[in-house]
Amino acid sequence: MHQTFNAAIELNLLHANQEGADHNREHFDRWGITCLNLMSSPGAGKTVLLEQTLAALKDKFEMAVIEGDMTTELDADRLRKYDVPVIPINTGRSCHLDSKMVAGGIHTLEHQYNPTDFDLVLVENVGNLVCPAEFEVGEHAKVALLSVTEGEDKPLKYPVMFQEADCLLITKTDLAPYLDIDLERLTANVRQMNKDVTIIHVSAKTGAGLSQWFDWVGDRLKQNQASLARQI
Amino acid sequence: MHQTFNAAIELNLLHANQEGADHNREHFDRWGITCLNLMSSPGAGKTVLLEQTLAALKDKFEMAVIEGDMTTELDADRLRKYDVPVIPINTGRSCHLDSKMVAGGIHTLEHQYNPTDFDLVLVENVGNLVCPAEFEVGEHAKVALLSVTEGEDKPLKYPVMFQEADCLLITKTDLAPYLDIDLERLTANVRQMNKDVTIIHVSAKTGAGLSQWFDWVGDRLKQNQASLARQI
Repeated sequence: MHQTFNAAIELNLLHANQEGADHNREHFDRWGITCLNLMSSPGAGKTVLLEQTLAALKDKFEMAVIEGDMTTELDADRLRKYDVPVIPINTGRSCHLDSKMVAGGIHTLEHQYNPTDFDLVLVENVGNLVCPAEFEVGEHAKVALLSVTEGEDKPLKYPVMFQEADCLLITKTDLAPYLDIDLERLTANVRQMNKDVTIIHVSAKTGAGLSQWFDWVGDRLKQNQASLARQI
Repeated sequence: MHQTFNAAIELNLLHANQEGADHNREHFDRWGITCLNLMSSPGAGKTVLLEQTLAALKDKFEMAVIEGDMTTELDADRLRKYDVPVIPINTGRSCHLDSKMVAGGIHTLEHQYNPTDFDLVLVENVGNLVCPAEFEVGEHAKVALLSVTEGEDKPLKYPVMFQEADCLLITKTDLAPYLDIDLERLTANVRQMNKDVTIIHVSAKTGAGLSQWFDWVGDRLKQNQASLARQI
């Protein structure tokens, strides 16, 4: 968010985005889709997590990916190998996905596929620990990633991301022995921002923690489907 | 930058910021100060680089730091130990420093210190690989940091930062043996964005490359002072 704007512009902007996000979520709900929004700093491991998630869960759930990047389809190309629909969105100079951009992705899903076929849409946001947390895109849950290389002070310095997250993946735990990071302090700092967030430690390299993440995804999906069934 | 804005608002915003940046630079020039703007993703090592720079150069140059963070004075407190003026700016929800915020820091420098005493002002921006590159704050040179843990694709995916940088520090090189990073590919990707940027590989842990960085700072300062002398 750019503090240079006056409060009225900022309020209008977030209000319009929220309306768009609610509208996107109505689409997902109608089709029985659960949507997760993955957010982190650049290089924390969102794409490799998605690769491993698609590989592990693609026989269990019907999945699609909405892939946000400022430029390039490098990440989209990595994910297409897993034989699931990957819808790329280039944000240009924008530092985050907003609900309007994701609406474009939903439009593609609706017109190029049969949207009721899908159980799960995974959104990979632009790498940024600040703004993506403020711009809801229609997701049912927010997943934040923080690499152990980023340091234990980050939850205090970038509070919104940690306050908003439903699940926090502490990634690259295989590197912890080579760093001075204090993982207990990191956990305490996360808890200071958000006492309820599920924290999972993972390593894409060793596979540690991944089954716990897959279980979380499955549980979140079941929970969402049960909630939708009650509404009908 | 938020693409949700219309082009007119965006242009006004960047224009107003640029005017403020030019004004800030006039102040620095009048006082004979060289200003460097340090930018990177969260956790790439800006603060530790500043700690080592203050320790190494404080007997050689008179330095001050303008320290940007969304919240907290954690980084400012780390730097105050080096007995140089540290002026904290909390950006609140803003994902970058803008020229107006830095003008506030310059005001403090002017009224609490004797600004002509200083040779070098180091600005530590908010951790974000996107927006800080678009919002000039009055610096004479932009310094970007990219940690080896972030991956070799980042210059392609976050082009503006790499296009704008005058000096790029590849940090945490001591971790490279534990990663799958291809450093030659990384360099090629940087060069694709910016053929002139100075690239320095550093490790805060082993000290590798730091003397090259200190030399770059000294050279940049001399170059700026020579340029100012010609203008008088």
